[in-house]
Amino acid sequence: MSLPESVVVLGSGAGALSCSVELSLAGLKVTLADLPRFADGVNAVGAAGEIRLRCPWHGETAAPVAATGTDPAAAIDGQELIVVSVPAFGHQAWADLLAAELKDGQSVLWVGEGGGALTLAATLRRTGRRPAVHIAETNSLPYGARVRGPGLITASRKSGGTLVAGLPAENNPLVAIACKVWPWMSPAENVWETTLLNFNAIDHVPPIICNLGAIEGRTGSFLLWGEGASPAVSRMIERIDAELLALRGALGLTNTDGYADYLVAQGFAPRREPTLHATLQSSSFAASTFPCGPDALKSRYLTEDVPYALVLMASIGDELDIPTPTIDSLIHLASVAAGTDFQAGGRTLADLDLAGAGRDGLLTAAREGRW
Amino acid sequence: MSLPESVVVLGSGAGALSCSVELSLAGLKVTLADLPRFADGVNAVGAAGEIRLRCPWHGETAAPVAATGTDPAAAIDGQELIVVSVPAFGHQAWADLLAAELKDGQSVLWVGEGGGALTLAATLRRTGRRPAVHIAETNSLPYGARVRGPGLITASRKSGGTLVAGLPAENNPLVAIACKVWPWMSPAENVWETTLLNFNAIDHVPPIICNLGAIEGRTGSFLLWGEGASPAVSRMIERIDAELLALRGALGLTNTDGYADYLVAQGFAPRREPTLHATLQSSSFAASTFPCGPDALKSRYLTEDVPYALVLMASIGDELDIPTPTIDSLIHLASVAAGTDFQAGGRTLADLDLAGAGRDGLLTAAREGRW
Repeated sequence: MSLPESVVVLGSGAGALSCSVELSLAGLKVTLADLPRFADGVNAVGAAGEIRLRCPWHGETAAPVAATGTDPAAAIDGQELIVVSVPAFGHQAWADLLAAELKDGQSVLWVGEGGGALTLAATLRRTGRRPAVHIAETNSLPYGARVRGPGLITASRKSGGTLVAGLPAENNPLVAIACKVWPWMSPAENVWETTLLNFNAIDHVPPIICNLGAIEGRTGSFLLWGEGASPAVSRMIERIDAELLALRGALGLTNTDGYADYLVAQGFAPRREPTLHATLQSSSFAASTFPCGPDALKSRYLTEDVPYALVLMASIGDELDIPTPTIDSLIHLASVAAGTDFQAGGRTLADLDLAGAGRDGLLTAAREGRW
Repeated sequence: MSLPESVVVLGSGAGALSCSVELSLAGLKVTLADLPRFADGVNAVGAAGEIRLRCPWHGETAAPVAATGTDPAAAIDGQELIVVSVPAFGHQAWADLLAAELKDGQSVLWVGEGGGALTLAATLRRTGRRPAVHIAETNSLPYGARVRGPGLITASRKSGGTLVAGLPAENNPLVAIACKVWPWMSPAENVWETTLLNFNAIDHVPPIICNLGAIEGRTGSFLLWGEGASPAVSRMIERIDAELLALRGALGLTNTDGYADYLVAQGFAPRREPTLHATLQSSSFAASTFPCGPDALKSRYLTEDVPYALVLMASIGDELDIPTPTIDSLIHLASVAAGTDFQAGGRTLADLDLAGAGRDGLLTAAREGRW
């Protein structure tokens, strides 16, 4: 399996820039494109012709970017490989654009939280277009990355534990391509594994809901796990993980690694301690800060992870008759806290044209990925 | 309506001692009795022959107690009026004792969180005894009180907003007796009003669950409402209140005063502010402390208020087909936090022999109080 010569990366946030760097360093000719309203970030890269990166494994380096643009439809035209790295609340808008434009032989890899692949498949079905394309998605960014200035990012590579699933699941060349570009990525069984192993949904919401007084009532920074993941809060994280393990089990997924295993696999914690609380406190998460103040409730840790991840997980639980009481409770209390009905606005199996599909229907959809 | 000459008060905590003081100062001959395992508190009062009280309205005073005992069955024998003031997790044990001992013409007034009256009625039904007795209950202690030493309490009287309901609801002499002893008490329509206007259940649980990091992770004291009732947490308190108002409405109760109204009525806040958050921060609650540390999760603010109040409220919601999503979510997350299944251990309509009674059956039970 050889890599294509070129790639277009859609998006211009930290995820898209860190994907662009890795693809560029792997020898691909990279085009970075985003919607006109995000022109600033794209144009900064275009003016420099490169993305500067500070990170522990590449040191201080710069990766060339061949072209940039703010007309995504034009940018993807003729490209064999398309990588999309955007927040989950952008999945549908990009799926709409891609469903209208994709041509036979193109491939779309969604890098970030899961859900993009099934969103695109459902959108293709609805539009009645049936291009011969491959789709795949990861469950998480292979890095922790932040934009620090125009065309400048800092990033820390995870040591492992990022998964990539093809849609259709089998004989999907995107899985091998992703694992070649990001050698610390590993294949998932199918997109239900990438959907149901969303670490952000597991570990972002409990420490916010269980520390609202501190988060809303302070200025400055809060140690979201260091101060916030007390033993009781860690138990809530464990319960979400257990509910997701039950959903994965019901779908026949064989990977039974839990959240704490992934903290180690991704390099955040040196080893599993006797309790999740101890594992979290021994991890680099203990020093990770979160900005306080009333706007904290507008954080993607709630506005992305609750409606696009927890709500979808609860919907899968409903479909499979697997209870998800901790997930359900956090969706409700996060909605009350933020003053937004995340359930009503969230992504469900119905949005993916899979309501009523049942276990077998969900598995067929992942295996065959028909549209 | 004249007060009886004597009364037996069951219990020996702050509630029982402050009830004894008020009854004694009203001219009744008071006997204080509790179970043998609580002999220390009872005997301290017996040795002194009085209860010393420090409070803003009586100043520093002492109220005579005629007798004390640790054989409650003997203590209530021949007493016309029995006052029980114990935590809700003691309701069933005292109901068992009273159901076995009560004789025609006796009256039982439960002072504290609601639920005792229906517990006693159900226990009488189960034991097959049908004494001609009156039962009543309040929704809340008429004071905030703390035991400060042997036979010594500090107390602050609420200025109003405590309710008393008779079981049966009508022609129940206990209501007038209670309102004469505690003139700032007012009659409730029936025991559903005292059950569903439980301020502790409304305002204790959200600030604990939403401040677990601070409460578990600190030593010393936490300003449970001053620091903890941030705007988002106050919204959760409002939602519980709204769910209880819906339950009360479904049961035809005409009192539509909400939690914020009672903060003012009880004298905790000078007036209602535009938001509950502002009302709470202007109230004396803003300076009220809560002890931190891992044992905080064993606080009655969780172990009493969740299983005996929120679980019962959710059960009433199920019976009436009124959704209680905020109450349900808090029951679940409190259970995860404390590592205890409060739902399974909690008081429900089934425990009160009222499961399946429907709206009409619940109203009949409160109006007629048959056993």
